[in-house]
Amino acid sequence: MSSDLYRLTATEVLQKTKAGDISVQDYATSLLNRIAARDDAVQAWAYLDPAYVLEQAKALDAIPAAERGPLHGVAIAVKDVIFTKDMPTQFNSPVYTNNAPKLDAGSIVILRKAGALILGKTTTTEFAATTVGPKTRNPHDPNRTPGGSSSGSGAAVGDLQAPIGLGTQTGGSTIRPGSYNGIYAFKPTWNAITREGQKIYALILDTLGLYARSVADLELLADTFAIFDDVPAPTNFAVKGAKFALLKTMVWPSVGPGTTAALDKAADLLRAHGAEVEEITLPENLDELPQWHAAVLASEGRTAFLPEYATAKDQISAQLVGHVENSDKISRKAQLDAFDNIGAARPVVDDILGRYAAVITPSVPDEAPEGIEKTGSAAFCLIWTALHTPVVNVPGFQGDHGMPIGVSLVAPRYHDRRLLAVSKKVGEIFEKEGGWSRSV
Amino acid sequence: MSSDLYRLTATEVLQKTKAGDISVQDYATSLLNRIAARDDAVQAWAYLDPAYVLEQAKALDAIPAAERGPLHGVAIAVKDVIFTKDMPTQFNSPVYTNNAPKLDAGSIVILRKAGALILGKTTTTEFAATTVGPKTRNPHDPNRTPGGSSSGSGAAVGDLQAPIGLGTQTGGSTIRPGSYNGIYAFKPTWNAITREGQKIYALILDTLGLYARSVADLELLADTFAIFDDVPAPTNFAVKGAKFALLKTMVWPSVGPGTTAALDKAADLLRAHGAEVEEITLPENLDELPQWHAAVLASEGRTAFLPEYATAKDQISAQLVGHVENSDKISRKAQLDAFDNIGAARPVVDDILGRYAAVITPSVPDEAPEGIEKTGSAAFCLIWTALHTPVVNVPGFQGDHGMPIGVSLVAPRYHDRRLLAVSKKVGEIFEKEGGWSRSV
Repeated sequence: MSSDLYRLTATEVLQKTKAGDISVQDYATSLLNRIAARDDAVQAWAYLDPAYVLEQAKALDAIPAAERGPLHGVAIAVKDVIFTKDMPTQFNSPVYTNNAPKLDAGSIVILRKAGALILGKTTTTEFAATTVGPKTRNPHDPNRTPGGSSSGSGAAVGDLQAPIGLGTQTGGSTIRPGSYNGIYAFKPTWNAITREGQKIYALILDTLGLYARSVADLELLADTFAIFDDVPAPTNFAVKGAKFALLKTMVWPSVGPGTTAALDKAADLLRAHGAEVEEITLPENLDELPQWHAAVLASEGRTAFLPEYATAKDQISAQLVGHVENSDKISRKAQLDAFDNIGAARPVVDDILGRYAAVITPSVPDEAPEGIEKTGSAAFCLIWTALHTPVVNVPGFQGDHGMPIGVSLVAPRYHDRRLLAVSKKVGEIFEKEGGWSRSV
Repeated sequence: MSSDLYRLTATEVLQKTKAGDISVQDYATSLLNRIAARDDAVQAWAYLDPAYVLEQAKALDAIPAAERGPLHGVAIAVKDVIFTKDMPTQFNSPVYTNNAPKLDAGSIVILRKAGALILGKTTTTEFAATTVGPKTRNPHDPNRTPGGSSSGSGAAVGDLQAPIGLGTQTGGSTIRPGSYNGIYAFKPTWNAITREGQKIYALILDTLGLYARSVADLELLADTFAIFDDVPAPTNFAVKGAKFALLKTMVWPSVGPGTTAALDKAADLLRAHGAEVEEITLPENLDELPQWHAAVLASEGRTAFLPEYATAKDQISAQLVGHVENSDKISRKAQLDAFDNIGAARPVVDDILGRYAAVITPSVPDEAPEGIEKTGSAAFCLIWTALHTPVVNVPGFQGDHGMPIGVSLVAPRYHDRRLLAVSKKVGEIFEKEGGWSRSV
């Protein structure tokens, strides 16, 4: 039924448009209807112009079949810290109200060329840097946060308002909303996708992130962004006989009952399907990874927000003023020690990760907390951001209040495609037997 | 004489405007006359609108004295890979002809707020990434290259068309033109200045660079960009009694007679002024630093230029196509090994550098070569770009054809202000006794 087209994954949409069963306009209309019906409840969008979306859809339909790109008509929600030449980019900051330079981020250039339909801009915390939530609500419970900082993209994909979303991650800004909204979230290896035209918080941490409701869609995006491992990913990965590790990490004390249960169930399910699962720990000398992340984050934020501080100090949050004024009194020596220690840890951790099909670790402490004022804790995500490893949030579990909970699968740097192949098979199990299913 | 104002350093201009001796319009007029007289010979500008410069100057003059910024009226030449909201940004690429998004780079936001007068955009090699020279000629010999990729900023400051210039460095793009044009060039510690709004080649290498004809001007800019060491720089550094090191590096075999002589003379002069100078070498296990730099450069370029490759492959240079297509067949493993090896080298080299007032090392193999087709070799610069250390090119020497040659002073990361303080005293000696003096 054409009114249900909004439910499709990107891969399914492509099949239908390729077969001539639907037009991009049909599809866009269905999505816009979904958005119209749900926007009051979810409020995922910082900017969306339905008439312009239809105009773009019409233009895509006019492209001869032979000239269509690999993402022809695939609708994409774009976090509002990524420049789009035809829509404002406002960073959820009063400093940038109505800011609209005619500039496409590198990622947007690639997506447009592939035929994607840019739907609109999604909400973010201020500069994707704070944990103060925007107006957006969790599609599975309007009294809970969708997470952040990629709040709107996570909620839009979770609420079937878009099949694909772009987020970013400096701490846990892609993976956390992935877990809270019950969707797949993919943080690729650092710098595997260009960050040109994406607001900077911390150069050595910021990563473009991707949302979808299927791993096949993430693989489609990985193709589009030319992300390739040294060795092609297995086409027939089997959970049976594979070896996984369970890693609680040094921040395990902050875990709640929902994630504790999810991690147990994940291990049980993998074992029930014939996999070996062993619990591992990271070397003790890496216990300070979260503190190193914090030191690098604040120090690089000191550089990144000087322009806004210089011109509009009273319009940026106290956290960012604190970065610029170095209120934590982080010395250059401490900054460099943290930067270098993380650097030394990367190959060490890669080596450990490389022994398994994937390492399973929490995405979040628990299900999405109540309230939309705060976007939740990034505690479990930030070490992977610092380590530059690819991470996939796989949904399938739920917390005490029936909210979705995902777990993270992690692989060594530039083993992104292998990680996606593994996540696909693991996801089939977790989605079917994990206990949570999408009801929106 | 007001017609000679173009000869002033930024620091001198500030003194005169503050004293009410000159207006910004007087100063701008003098610079525009200088540019008009010399532009045919040097061709440093990719974009310059004299009427708009005067309009800006007039607006600056209208600011009440009490509200003027620390760079009030200081004219700045901006490399055309840095976004300016009121001028095109074209990257010397046909893909971006007339590209003019209304966007200021982070560095430009800070400079404008400080009261700087943005003169115009200066020439660059394509995306600051190739060694194919733009139209620009060396102000000291029109048959020679001004170097690259910051060709126009280096030539403009060297030719007294601007007191200050912004460049960038990914290999040797700031320091090399500094040496070739006989000016001070400062590559700060990586990420000490925001790179927001500056075209990406390699995230872990790209650095904003600064040009001036005096170290006092570089200190003024370091103040503006809030670059501070842990320990305040000495206000009374004395060459007498200080300890310097001479470092020929693993690329010494590529050196020519001009730099050989310059380095010898530099050591002799320092010794004559009472300093201790010892020759040092880097540990042998760092001999491959240039190869690691090359692997990281190509691999990060693979990510950075995918947007242009996807949309306009036939309009970008073969070198960049090669990056995207990974024509050097650099595996992800080799890329990560290079990235990690450089990371491990940084604290090791910092430790060595920290033993001296500064380490003296070549900026370039020799004076600027003949022809403007190629911008010369970055061989001596690129290891410092990879190591993230601050570098100052100090002019004062000359080659066999009377062209300027500078030497590099290097310090540990985030010892930028100490390095500037040392460079100021060393520069006084080299400029006075090194043998070369500015004749343009």
